[in-house]
Amino acid sequence: MNFRMIKHITGWLLLFEALFLCVPTLTAAIYREKAVWYYLLTALLCGGIGLLLAWKKPKNTVLYAKEGFVIVSLSWILLSLLGCLPLWLCGDIPSFVDALFETVSGFTTTGASILPDVEHLSHASQIWRSFTHWVGGMGVLVFIMAFVPLSGGQNMHIMKAESPGPSVSKLVPRVKTTALILYVLYFFMTLLEFVFLLFGKMNPFEALNTAFSTAGTGGFGLRNDSLGGYSSYIQSVVTVFMLLFSINFSCYYLLLLGRLKDAFNAEVRTFLLIVAGAITVVTINIRSLFPTIGDALHHAAFTVASLISTTGFSTADFDLWPTLSKTVLVMVMFIGACAGSTGGGIKVSRIIILCKGMIRELDNLVHPHRVRKVTMDGQPVDAEVVRSVNVFMVCYLAVFSVSLLLVSLDNFDLVTNFTAVTATINNIGPGLSLVGPTQNFSLFSVPSKLVLIFDMLAGRLELFPMLALFTPSTWKK
Amino acid sequence: MNFRMIKHITGWLLLFEALFLCVPTLTAAIYREKAVWYYLLTALLCGGIGLLLAWKKPKNTVLYAKEGFVIVSLSWILLSLLGCLPLWLCGDIPSFVDALFETVSGFTTTGASILPDVEHLSHASQIWRSFTHWVGGMGVLVFIMAFVPLSGGQNMHIMKAESPGPSVSKLVPRVKTTALILYVLYFFMTLLEFVFLLFGKMNPFEALNTAFSTAGTGGFGLRNDSLGGYSSYIQSVVTVFMLLFSINFSCYYLLLLGRLKDAFNAEVRTFLLIVAGAITVVTINIRSLFPTIGDALHHAAFTVASLISTTGFSTADFDLWPTLSKTVLVMVMFIGACAGSTGGGIKVSRIIILCKGMIRELDNLVHPHRVRKVTMDGQPVDAEVVRSVNVFMVCYLAVFSVSLLLVSLDNFDLVTNFTAVTATINNIGPGLSLVGPTQNFSLFSVPSKLVLIFDMLAGRLELFPMLALFTPSTWKK
Repeated sequence: MNFRMIKHITGWLLLFEALFLCVPTLTAAIYREKAVWYYLLTALLCGGIGLLLAWKKPKNTVLYAKEGFVIVSLSWILLSLLGCLPLWLCGDIPSFVDALFETVSGFTTTGASILPDVEHLSHASQIWRSFTHWVGGMGVLVFIMAFVPLSGGQNMHIMKAESPGPSVSKLVPRVKTTALILYVLYFFMTLLEFVFLLFGKMNPFEALNTAFSTAGTGGFGLRNDSLGGYSSYIQSVVTVFMLLFSINFSCYYLLLLGRLKDAFNAEVRTFLLIVAGAITVVTINIRSLFPTIGDALHHAAFTVASLISTTGFSTADFDLWPTLSKTVLVMVMFIGACAGSTGGGIKVSRIIILCKGMIRELDNLVHPHRVRKVTMDGQPVDAEVVRSVNVFMVCYLAVFSVSLLLVSLDNFDLVTNFTAVTATINNIGPGLSLVGPTQNFSLFSVPSKLVLIFDMLAGRLELFPMLALFTPSTWKK
Repeated sequence: MNFRMIKHITGWLLLFEALFLCVPTLTAAIYREKAVWYYLLTALLCGGIGLLLAWKKPKNTVLYAKEGFVIVSLSWILLSLLGCLPLWLCGDIPSFVDALFETVSGFTTTGASILPDVEHLSHASQIWRSFTHWVGGMGVLVFIMAFVPLSGGQNMHIMKAESPGPSVSKLVPRVKTTALILYVLYFFMTLLEFVFLLFGKMNPFEALNTAFSTAGTGGFGLRNDSLGGYSSYIQSVVTVFMLLFSINFSCYYLLLLGRLKDAFNAEVRTFLLIVAGAITVVTINIRSLFPTIGDALHHAAFTVASLISTTGFSTADFDLWPTLSKTVLVMVMFIGACAGSTGGGIKVSRIIILCKGMIRELDNLVHPHRVRKVTMDGQPVDAEVVRSVNVFMVCYLAVFSVSLLLVSLDNFDLVTNFTAVTATINNIGPGLSLVGPTQNFSLFSVPSKLVLIFDMLAGRLELFPMLALFTPSTWKK
């Protein structure tokens, strides 16, 4: 284990966190809020520790897969532990565990809140919550890699461990350039949404927050009814952008290069098909709850987009919808967004590989001597990737089951527990019943909150880094 | 596809069904019930069609894997379609789909009933329900193979397709002898339970029914409160036998041979550990609901044994227990019994292979160059078996999700739908909420009942045969 490099990179991480903290600090200064001191203090703390750790670049910069896992999982834990300090210290969230829950929920783009009332937060804390979504969405280490020369050719291990999806496709040969392209695309798409929201007469502060939240597919809102109180225009803009941010970013890069056919690959097509199917079923199913079919379609589209993109905004209380709609919504929560997007969930490409693998194996059972490979977009999928997807599913079920068991100690109903774990491990936000869209997560006990914090981190980092951190063989020589 | 052999074997199947139907016919004759004519008529019908189909043994007796799947799935469908006739015709169950549901539930050893009142059934229908459990438990084709020389060396494909578990271990080199040994063990263990129940002053008819139901880990009872009204002694006897029948039968064979160490293999040990753990947690959790800790232990042990063995008897309404207990119970429903037993569920050996595979893969991610194999009882597990277990899980999730979606069209609550699918696909019987231990499945619409019928068959035959039946490539040349 290359501890010097781990120290060096987490040092850089804290330097960047200091930089990120300037956003709420400036906001607090503009609005003349008392919170300014706590945000400034935390920024200085991060900067100080960061400088100490990152001071000297080690001679040996070699990183293997295990260092990649450890760096990524440790970074995210550290980021959250320091990031929650101002929320706690300034009094906006009086309990440390709650502040940690809120911050992890922010960075992992979950958007599950323990706050019954978000409208009384300071402006600084509001922008910090939304900004954590934006930073966490594309990945904080990817961000660092775009600007800092970290470790020669071995950045790939870090990118692999932090990026969502079964396999990472580099847009260009160099990891650093890939990271930069991704962040430039991300920045401009966020800007575009901000502008569209301004057109809808949203005030700039709210528009900025909403754009950050949508871009990271996070889901923290500024109002207690999430996006229910905004105009249909604004809700529609957010619907479109939630879907845009859950599509693999390489799609946009290829579109810019004019490679239309490559851009709309099997995953993107399947994703759009699932979205269309789910919206149709839900619209028909909730038709009678709304005055016109247009209204039903509007809310169905918003809710499906919000849950499949794992954003978690709401315009209507879908906990009151019929069971078929709720079942469809829970299913899209599990499916999730495309790989290489800012969304969570199992990911569409994994679902495709699982289904194709299943069909191939059934075929294999019937015709044992025929050899068929799983293909995607005409290319055979590496057997290693198919296997790792299968293992991902097993790990997913294992983490899910253990979490469900631990959370059930709080003795809430089965739907609450099941959807609380679903909403956190898939980085969505709201669930059903007691954690439905009009409720929040404050009812859980501290141990349950810690379990859900673990689930959010494990979900965002797609299990392996967090599990590797706790696997003894990672630490053996 | 060797259609002649499929015809021949299904012919034999119907001949045996005619034989099985003698049990309720005789019972009806003894109790002088009108149902005698309907049971006799169906027996003659089965015998007639069976004779026609089985008359000439084909020259080409070669069977491949695909024929194995087709024979097994078709046999079970045919068995149920004919087996439900007397229940329907004699008026005990007025609707055909309900009669089919009840019969499939019987043969697949599910024990989910559509009857609100089982106490008014004729004796013939009562014993027929219990007897279908007994026949379905060990497998009807395994039964035929024990007595009829079917197809030389290729019986293995049929045994593989019908027997539960990721891989079939032959006790002795010949399949026919293995099948015979299994049935002899099965017969004597059932007899033993019958005798123990007689000691508890149960009347012989009830004792016979209960023994059949327990042996097949089915769960049809003779009283509306299942086993709630019987003495503690009888409930304890059933607890012990439910567990005994959910252990791999090769364990008993090895015990008889004196090979103690081989008998208690990893699967049996893990199974007993899970049972002990679940009973402990549930006992502590429900302690306050019962007058003494002994009572709590008694009901916890009965319920855990009933659900992990996928029998589905009940002595208490566990739908009223705290959430932790309910979560544990739903989990043991999924885990299920040992491979090679009469119980359902995912099977303990699959869970072990999945967990060991997961640990190996995590290790592999951290140390990509280290080669490790999954082992069980000191032997490496065939990579083919590991892969097929992974695919089983994916198929399981796929069938589960689609069923849940279809059943949710009935608009009952999420827990009802979720546990109805859980209880049928794992061949348990009762679920929670509206399909809880004091309720029944009559509330579902006809389409939902058909979905659950498919789930019971798919669960009992462990998915692949039923899925292969509907895979187009099975029928292509």
